Amino acid sequence: MDRASLIREIKNKKSFLCVGLDTDLNKIPTHLQDAENPIFAFNKEIIDATKDYAVAYKLNIAFYESLGIKGWEALQKTIDYIPENCFTIADAKRGDIGNTAEMYAKTFFNTYAFDSVTVAPYMGKDSVQPFLDFANKWTILLGLTSNPGSKDFQLLETVEGPLYQQVLKKSAAWANEENLMYVIGATQGELLKTIRTIIPNHFLLIPGVGAQGGTVKEVAEATLNEDIGILINVSRGIIYAGEGEKFADAVTKAAAQFQKEMEAFF
Amino acid sequence: MDRASLIREIKNKKSFLCVGLDTDLNKIPTHLQDAENPIFAFNKEIIDATKDYAVAYKLNIAFYESLGIKGWEALQKTIDYIPENCFTIADAKRGDIGNTAEMYAKTFFNTYAFDSVTVAPYMGKDSVQPFLDFANKWTILLGLTSNPGSKDFQLLETVEGPLYQQVLKKSAAWANEENLMYVIGATQGELLKTIRTIIPNHFLLIPGVGAQGGTVKEVAEATLNEDIGILINVSRGIIYAGEGEKFADAVTKAAAQFQKEMEAFF
Repeated sequence: MDRASLIREIKNKKSFLCVGLDTDLNKIPTHLQDAENPIFAFNKEIIDATKDYAVAYKLNIAFYESLGIKGWEALQKTIDYIPENCFTIADAKRGDIGNTAEMYAKTFFNTYAFDSVTVAPYMGKDSVQPFLDFANKWTILLGLTSNPGSKDFQLLETVEGPLYQQVLKKSAAWANEENLMYVIGATQGELLKTIRTIIPNHFLLIPGVGAQGGTVKEVAEATLNEDIGILINVSRGIIYAGEGEKFADAVTKAAAQFQKEMEAFF
Repeated sequence: MDRASLIREIKNKKSFLCVGLDTDLNKIPTHLQDAENPIFAFNKEIIDATKDYAVAYKLNIAFYESLGIKGWEALQKTIDYIPENCFTIADAKRGDIGNTAEMYAKTFFNTYAFDSVTVAPYMGKDSVQPFLDFANKWTILLGLTSNPGSKDFQLLETVEGPLYQQVLKKSAAWANEENLMYVIGATQGELLKTIRTIIPNHFLLIPGVGAQGGTVKEVAEATLNEDIGILINVSRGIIYAGEGEKFADAVTKAAAQFQKEMEAFF
């Protein structure tokens, strides 16, 4: 999905909501545990329940990978089931030397046909370039994350400012806003505005709203640009909103509530 | 495999050779292309050909992942086939927030029973800790890599020295040399001695010898400690050493040659 189409979908739905499918076998309702593929059975209901309110779905690859072949089957079925007009994100945080990075890019862009994949910056330009080289696909580079460990290295002062700012500045020269986005953690409230001065036009993928703290309003006020320019990811706050056989009703309600908060910004 | 056992195997074989199974469908001999699982058929011959000379095998996960389910089957069969007395490395370079990192750790330590997994440091302590928490398993953290992009961020000067040195110093306080190793690129010749002053006792996993330049002698002289303390990984220089139906003969020869160079240091 290209940038123009993504923006069109966002404006159509008046939503910049991304639903995070961090699907955990131990947390899905009991009645789905006997399904042929419980993870997919759960994801299917979540997608049905949220597709009118979400413009994107993010699959946290660790949750699928850890289940072995059954997990990859669930991932494939889920990707196939997500509606065409929704943007898909492989949250994989891969990063390796050139020939290996190319294999990872092939995995997520070709084997599984995601629109985008998250990538780690530590190994530098030639570890990111193979992802950027895919036409009509997106690289979502880790900028500043929302976990406690972000302080260990990302906020470390280099001779030219904090490391995460170096990552944003250098990488912004490797590509443009047509195929490069950034992961920016929402709990870093005071830093969001600074980040927008460095990368005013790029899309930001913002986790950390909901279960991890942070509100739609705060984040939107600090980061929206004229194209909207953000995707806010909510995982646990939506997918585990309900319980029992009718869990999907509460899921719809939660997604609709997030969309309503977002609608105020259109 | 614990540290004492690893050192014992190294001393028994007079070798600190790790064979990198970066197995590429496009590069394996034609006669294996019709096997039920060509990747595993190739790996099996490589393992048979090298197991007397190698103490470790490193599977580059990207090469398996990119093939979908067939690739994960090849990975499982390969892991099952590697002799018990060899150390196994999942070269996955994963890194994510706590609950996700735990899923990745489960994938490689439980689902596939590797001895170790490579991990990226950008997200800090809580992204590494879930790997360190597994008993009798190893975390191999990216320190300094050998690719051109290592200059972009790893060598960036922070207020307390280059970033990679900060990664070594901080992370060395998170665990000890019983379950933490580092990836250190061998083409960074002049830096290897500096690194040994910072982490004198930790094992180093050193790629970049062979196809990527760098020699066993140079690397060994700069990094060996009293426990040997290094694993030198060679991928293309060994696994693609031969051609045709008898490709494994040249593979054995290449592995034996590396072991012979290493034997001089015992």
